[in-house]
Amino acid sequence: MNYTPPTQEQVFAMRVCAGIEELAQSERFEAATPDMVEAIAEGIGQFAAGEWAPLNRPGDLEGAKLENGVVRLPQGFEEAYEHYVEQGWNAIDGPVDYGGQALPFTLSCNVLENLGTANMAFNLLPMLSVGAIEALDAHGSQEQKDRYLPKLVAGAWSGTMNLTEPQAGSDLGALRTTAHPITDGEHAGKWRIRGQKIYITWGDHELAENIVHLVLARTPDAPEGSRGISMFVVPKYHVKGDGSLGARNDLRAVSLEHKLGIHASPTCVMSYGDNDECVGEVVGAENRGLAAMFTMMNNARINVGNQGVQIGERALQQATAYAAERIQSARAGAPDKKPVAIVEHPDVRRMLLRMRALTEGVRALLYYTAGQVDRGTLGDADAQARADLCVPMLKAWGTDAGVEIASLGVQVHGGMGFVEETGAAQHYRDARIAPIYEGTNGIQAADLVTRKLGMANGEVLFALMQQIASKAGDGSNLADLAEACEATGRWMASEASLDDRLAGSVPFTEMCAIAVAGWQLLRQREALEGDDTAFAARKRATVRFFLDRIVPEARGLKASAQAGAEGLYAIPTETLLA
Amino acid sequence: MNYTPPTQEQVFAMRVCAGIEELAQSERFEAATPDMVEAIAEGIGQFAAGEWAPLNRPGDLEGAKLENGVVRLPQGFEEAYEHYVEQGWNAIDGPVDYGGQALPFTLSCNVLENLGTANMAFNLLPMLSVGAIEALDAHGSQEQKDRYLPKLVAGAWSGTMNLTEPQAGSDLGALRTTAHPITDGEHAGKWRIRGQKIYITWGDHELAENIVHLVLARTPDAPEGSRGISMFVVPKYHVKGDGSLGARNDLRAVSLEHKLGIHASPTCVMSYGDNDECVGEVVGAENRGLAAMFTMMNNARINVGNQGVQIGERALQQATAYAAERIQSARAGAPDKKPVAIVEHPDVRRMLLRMRALTEGVRALLYYTAGQVDRGTLGDADAQARADLCVPMLKAWGTDAGVEIASLGVQVHGGMGFVEETGAAQHYRDARIAPIYEGTNGIQAADLVTRKLGMANGEVLFALMQQIASKAGDGSNLADLAEACEATGRWMASEASLDDRLAGSVPFTEMCAIAVAGWQLLRQREALEGDDTAFAARKRATVRFFLDRIVPEARGLKASAQAGAEGLYAIPTETLLA
Repeated sequence: MNYTPPTQEQVFAMRVCAGIEELAQSERFEAATPDMVEAIAEGIGQFAAGEWAPLNRPGDLEGAKLENGVVRLPQGFEEAYEHYVEQGWNAIDGPVDYGGQALPFTLSCNVLENLGTANMAFNLLPMLSVGAIEALDAHGSQEQKDRYLPKLVAGAWSGTMNLTEPQAGSDLGALRTTAHPITDGEHAGKWRIRGQKIYITWGDHELAENIVHLVLARTPDAPEGSRGISMFVVPKYHVKGDGSLGARNDLRAVSLEHKLGIHASPTCVMSYGDNDECVGEVVGAENRGLAAMFTMMNNARINVGNQGVQIGERALQQATAYAAERIQSARAGAPDKKPVAIVEHPDVRRMLLRMRALTEGVRALLYYTAGQVDRGTLGDADAQARADLCVPMLKAWGTDAGVEIASLGVQVHGGMGFVEETGAAQHYRDARIAPIYEGTNGIQAADLVTRKLGMANGEVLFALMQQIASKAGDGSNLADLAEACEATGRWMASEASLDDRLAGSVPFTEMCAIAVAGWQLLRQREALEGDDTAFAARKRATVRFFLDRIVPEARGLKASAQAGAEGLYAIPTETLLA
Repeated sequence: MNYTPPTQEQVFAMRVCAGIEELAQSERFEAATPDMVEAIAEGIGQFAAGEWAPLNRPGDLEGAKLENGVVRLPQGFEEAYEHYVEQGWNAIDGPVDYGGQALPFTLSCNVLENLGTANMAFNLLPMLSVGAIEALDAHGSQEQKDRYLPKLVAGAWSGTMNLTEPQAGSDLGALRTTAHPITDGEHAGKWRIRGQKIYITWGDHELAENIVHLVLARTPDAPEGSRGISMFVVPKYHVKGDGSLGARNDLRAVSLEHKLGIHASPTCVMSYGDNDECVGEVVGAENRGLAAMFTMMNNARINVGNQGVQIGERALQQATAYAAERIQSARAGAPDKKPVAIVEHPDVRRMLLRMRALTEGVRALLYYTAGQVDRGTLGDADAQARADLCVPMLKAWGTDAGVEIASLGVQVHGGMGFVEETGAAQHYRDARIAPIYEGTNGIQAADLVTRKLGMANGEVLFALMQQIASKAGDGSNLADLAEACEATGRWMASEASLDDRLAGSVPFTEMCAIAVAGWQLLRQREALEGDDTAFAARKRATVRFFLDRIVPEARGLKASAQAGAEGLYAIPTETLLA
């Protein structure tokens, strides 16, 4: 199954939801002219469809393999990555001082959207590198930036994030990897790293000349818990003063996980310092590693929410193509009893429109959030607060929607959907990781009802919901939902205990996300008023589906969101477990 | 991960929801004494947990294989099936004239529940045999019954259903397999079968001495479409007059599907009559094959709905065990900041209670439906109508819930859930077939809003919903939902067009199913009034979760159920596909 980039829809969402034309009015983003935006969207779409999409199914079948200590990717990946680097796609929003184009984050989202729709597992390689670039750019010393950023921005080197350990997942404060100062020899002033990390995405491979690992570890006198974590940069190959590569550092991929999906993404168990010779440098201040990690977490979470759009779009295209081809049964009640393509049957049409409405809804929320991030970069504090508020919504709902869309895609295929050769099942498997990594969706929801709801005593959320309700108009489904979100938010911010808030956090996050997405879709429909193209007609049908069906369903979550924690603890844990 | 049979809960559900004690008052079911019911539930639970559950993960890893024309099952399956047959579990509700115990269908559901929770893929072998037994018992000639039923009832032979062909899935009327009369030779009076069937569950294997295929095919002068389909019994080995096995029939498994899940269940492409020597006998009247198939479809669909309970229970047990062991983070707001087992965190507890509430809700609906089937067998026409009404609800919602529960099970495990070794991912993969086979959930929903809603001009549904609302009490969530179901049903039965009904059929089916399940859970809670055991306390917590959260969510589906078809067809198909 091929990937056809939905370029018109993407550019439209960047225009209406991210306000990319307005962003280009600023000096900072003046390069993002309408022509440039279209050129990028078209270019990356064609590249992703032409070079990365064909590797999606072989990548799933073959998977990444660890052979004699070397991680091998399926055939074609090395070349396809080379072409990606050659064409400069890695540098879109990278810092201009190090070879980047410093274009809006919105456009980098578009690049990732296309790459990830083409090949979700492969796209994790640039996605992780982006995180490393951001962290080093924000917290690295000048020397570190000069040494690592040019190659990372170009894509010649890749980056990783090393956070998780077996006992330290959601709770990074529990991590045990250590860093001891080196006092003499050629590495004096640096740190000796020792420990094991798990779930390291693209932790090792041969596609890049070097791999720049960012590793969280504890220094000898660090305080306990999350306040005693420092960030280290630990390259696979040492980098000499002239920028050329030196000896191999003492780190290795011990094994790869055998996973449900994203088989082409090597998920490594990494060992640092087996021979006590693993050398790293601290990035930023000691014990401030978690804070440093957090600065790039917003964007990383947006990029994972983006994966909901990606898997949704791919599953939708596949299901649509199948529904157009598969002939089965006459329309119910049709006098001629002539079998039709299943797209003609009401429930198949419902499934396809639901897939599309969810995909376009998550995309609208994605580009709205990205646009707010870009405004934050320009110094707009309100926009930054909106971005902070929307990130957990996008990550949690976007990835849950991705799973639902992929599952609907299987269903549209009937029995063929359960047969691996079809490809629909791969999306269902691949999609399932996104609600888990980069902070589980439960963690996202907790972030929303604690930190994010706390911003300006809740006013950031309340103002957003009021804006939505006012735009939607009295008595509309969307206003009803936005009011329910505001009321629930107010209940959480006042009466509810911390446990109550957490107990309702996941349904609340979903309600809020759907309200924001519905609002952005409404704005999209408005922008197309009077437009009689097929694109506009289809958009109207999708928006209608979203507002008529998905919005009222979300309204049904209010009781869950406000049910409180008492019912969850009414029986002792041992009774629950019995 | 082991399986611990929830025997107390199962017996309780059979007692309260199926009314098994009342059934035992009848002469027909007098053997189903409380002692017998408990003995069966305990016995099959222990057997399934001890012998079939340990094969679940190896069965997934190794899978069924076709080697030199022979289907091979993973190690241990042959022995485990032998023990199953030896212990007589296959004969629970089989006809007493052929060695069965003629116990209530409710008990056969319990046997399948335990076997399927232990090993969903393996359980398809007895599940399919049950269908063949029912079909032959209802429509076979005396000679056919005498020849096939004793061995099928005992389990020494297994049965299959051969319906689907590449061009004939949901639309069986499109099938092309042919049957020509044999006019001379040893098989005179029988039929020569020719054609290819796909998705044949346990279509070939070596665990049983013979396989009895029921095959739908067309005779030479058959009318077009679904009125021209006949059912044939086609044994793998011919059966001689004395019951001993003769030569091999001209049929074979051509290939096995490579599937997303249930890897240990051989899903065969079957070829009949490669050498034009495949011999079968017609079962029942010519051209009445589809009707014959329908008589057993109700029970088959109940058995698939049962798989929602099965995968739910297994995923729940696994997630619960993990949540009790996994230590991560302190409780939010806890002054001691001491890490706790994740079961203590509000959102994990919410997920576990949701998994349990859904599992117990589907189980309650399962045994309620099974009890109505048994009352139908005793001649109660109202109960039979209730059963007919509930079957599509159970199949559709039960299997969708199974997927949701399995997905929640993955989520509770965090990163470990995405790693195959954990086992949670297998449930997520296995669960996904149930919404597809035995009539997709879309087909179930269509059945509900056309045939089933049409029973007694809708009164069967309306009366049920009125009974639920009255029991739940004015102003309660459940009454509100039941009233919404009745109102939607009335709208469908009067104003709505056929397309409108189909457009809302899936959300409507889910609403109705949750209303019935909520009602049965309410009855369970009532039955435990004053009971201060841990079982009763946990049940109250589960029922509360279901009524407080799941029921209002279902209420949120009303708008979708009544949204109508117009929005689905507002744009032409080519615009939707563009």
